[in-house]
Amino acid sequence: MVNDINIKVVLASRPKGYPQENDFEIVESKIPVVGEGELLLKILWLSLDPYMRGRMNDMRSYAPSVIIGEPMVGGAVARVIESRSPMYKVGDVVEGNLGWQSYAISDGLGLRKVDESLAPLQTSLGVLGMPGLTAYFGFLDICKPIPGDTVVISAASGAVGQVVGQIAKIMGCNVVGTAGTDAKVSFIVEELGFNAGINYKTQNIFDSLDAYCPDGVDVYFDNVGGDVTDAVLARINTWARIAICGQISQYNLKEPDMSPRNLSILTRSQAKMEGFLVFNYENRYEQGRNRLARWIKQGKIIYKESITEGLENAPSTFIGMLKGHNFGKTLIKVSESP
Amino acid sequence: MVNDINIKVVLASRPKGYPQENDFEIVESKIPVVGEGELLLKILWLSLDPYMRGRMNDMRSYAPSVIIGEPMVGGAVARVIESRSPMYKVGDVVEGNLGWQSYAISDGLGLRKVDESLAPLQTSLGVLGMPGLTAYFGFLDICKPIPGDTVVISAASGAVGQVVGQIAKIMGCNVVGTAGTDAKVSFIVEELGFNAGINYKTQNIFDSLDAYCPDGVDVYFDNVGGDVTDAVLARINTWARIAICGQISQYNLKEPDMSPRNLSILTRSQAKMEGFLVFNYENRYEQGRNRLARWIKQGKIIYKESITEGLENAPSTFIGMLKGHNFGKTLIKVSESP
Repeated sequence: MVNDINIKVVLASRPKGYPQENDFEIVESKIPVVGEGELLLKILWLSLDPYMRGRMNDMRSYAPSVIIGEPMVGGAVARVIESRSPMYKVGDVVEGNLGWQSYAISDGLGLRKVDESLAPLQTSLGVLGMPGLTAYFGFLDICKPIPGDTVVISAASGAVGQVVGQIAKIMGCNVVGTAGTDAKVSFIVEELGFNAGINYKTQNIFDSLDAYCPDGVDVYFDNVGGDVTDAVLARINTWARIAICGQISQYNLKEPDMSPRNLSILTRSQAKMEGFLVFNYENRYEQGRNRLARWIKQGKIIYKESITEGLENAPSTFIGMLKGHNFGKTLIKVSESP
Repeated sequence: MVNDINIKVVLASRPKGYPQENDFEIVESKIPVVGEGELLLKILWLSLDPYMRGRMNDMRSYAPSVIIGEPMVGGAVARVIESRSPMYKVGDVVEGNLGWQSYAISDGLGLRKVDESLAPLQTSLGVLGMPGLTAYFGFLDICKPIPGDTVVISAASGAVGQVVGQIAKIMGCNVVGTAGTDAKVSFIVEELGFNAGINYKTQNIFDSLDAYCPDGVDVYFDNVGGDVTDAVLARINTWARIAICGQISQYNLKEPDMSPRNLSILTRSQAKMEGFLVFNYENRYEQGRNRLARWIKQGKIIYKESITEGLENAPSTFIGMLKGHNFGKTLIKVSESP
C-alpha cells in the first residue's frame, strides 16, 4: 500500500469573505518514509469544522494560522499501517490533529487510541469527539442548566448543537433550536425531541422566540452570532447563562457586521456570557466521552452525519458547510478502512 | 421644624437623550403627618447615581420606572425627627431609598441605621454604601482578581471606579483607569495610586492601552461601554474576566450606538463577561461594608466626593453627572444635620 501517493489539501491563499475553491490546492507527493520512533498513518476520516475558517486568516487567535502551502489543519481518524514506535502497533486506530491529507507521519504524541467496538469510527470526530465534548462541557459547565430552564440553541442541527439540545432534553429543559432549513427544523423537533425549532431564514426570529419562549430564555448556547443572538439576548431572563461557542455568521464577512450595542442587557439581567474552548476541559474528556457513549447506548442521544467521499472534495464540502449546506456533523470519508 | 415645607423633585416628562432641567419639576407641599407605626425623616444627603437615568424611561428593567409626577427615586441619608414606630427613635440616622425630597415618611422597612461614629454620614451613600459595595462585590466576586493581573477600569474616578481601582491595588494588580479629564487622570494616578490613567477624550485609547497594558488585559471593570469597551476587549487575555457594571455612554442616546460585532473575542479568549446588580449580594453587605471601613481606617482607600448644596440643584447636578462634570461620588447636601 505504500506504493500509493499522498494527497494533501494545502492552503493556497488567505480568503477574504467566504473561501473559494482556489484558496485550496491539492498536492500529490510520495508517502513519507517512517523514521525511528514514528508511525505511518492512513487517514480514514477527516472532520470539517467551522473553527478551521479562523485558521485560514493571518491574525491573532488561540492557535497559530495555517501557513500558505501547508496542509489545512483538522482532526482525523487513521489506522496505523507502519510502526517504528512502541506507542502504537500496526492496525491500531487513532484520532488526532492529522490535517487534510491521506497519509500522515506522527511521533504518536497527541494521538488517542480509538476503541473500535464502542461506536462507528467516525463518531470519534463527532458525537464522541471534539464537537460532542464541546457540547457536553460547554452546556453543562458554562450554562449550568436547571430542569425547567428554557434553552435556546443556534445552529441546532449542527455537530455541536444537536448534542447540546439532546443533553438539554435529558436535563428536563424546554429546548428551542434555530436552523436554516425546514428539514433541519423538522429533524431537531421530530427526531431529536426539541420542543420547538425556528427556521431563521423564513420565520420572524423575534415573533418565533416570543411564541416558543413565553417565559423568557434562561440559557443560550450560541454557535452563530448575528441577528439571532441579538434577538435571544433581548429575551434573556435574570441570571441567564450564555455560552459563546462559535459565531459562524461572522467568519466570512468582508466588512464588519454592525449591531446596536446591547451590553446593558447583561447588567439588568445579571447575566453571564462566557466564551470557551473545549481544550480547557482536556483533563475531563474521558468523563464526557463515557457519559456521551452511555447516552448513545441508551438511545437518549442520536446523531446525524453529513458524509462526503474523497479528500479532493474537502474544499467544496468545507465551503458548503460554512454556508449551511451540511446537515449534521460534516465528515470526509478519506479512505476505506484497510 | 415641621412648619417647614416639603420639597420634592418629581419626574415631569420622560427624556429622549440627555435629560433636560424641564424633565424635572420642583414641587412644594406640606410636611406629611406621621401615622401610627411611621417615622418622619428629614433628609440630609441625597445620592445621585447613573442608574437613575434608566428609571426615567418607560421600559422593562430590573426595577419599575418612576411614574410621571412622582418623586425621582434615590438613596438618601436622613435623621428621624418624629417616630411613632418602635424600629427607630428620634435622632437616629438612617439610610434608604427615600427619593428626591426633603422629608419622607417611612414605615421603617428597608431602612438601615447608620453608625455616625464610623465615618462622615454621606459615606453611607458612597464608599460605604451602594457604590462602594458595587465595587467590592463586582470586582472581587465577578472579576476574581489575582495579584499581578492587569485590571482596566472605565470611569475610574467615579464613585464605583475609584473604589475598584484601590481594591485592585490592595490586591497587587497593575491598574489602569480611563477618565474624561486630565484632573481625573491625575487624581487616580497621583492620589489613588493607579499605575496609569488614560484621558479617553484627548488620548488615543488604543495606543494608550497598548502602552500601559503590554501584557494584555486580565480584568475589565466596565462602567461606560462604547468605544472604550471595544478597545479593551480587543486586548483581553485568555481567561479574562469582565464585569459589566454600567454602560453610561449608552444611557442618553437618541439613536442606538452601532458597533462591530465582537463576541468571537470571548470564544478565542475563553473569557467571561458578566453583568451584575449589587442587590444580589445583599446578604453579604455587612461583610463588604466592614472590610471597606477597615481599609478606609488603614488609609488604603480614600474617596472623593462631588457635593452640591440644595435639593433644587439636583436636576442640573444629575444632568452634569451624566455628562461627566462630576468628580467622584455625586451627592446633594439636602439639609444640615439638625
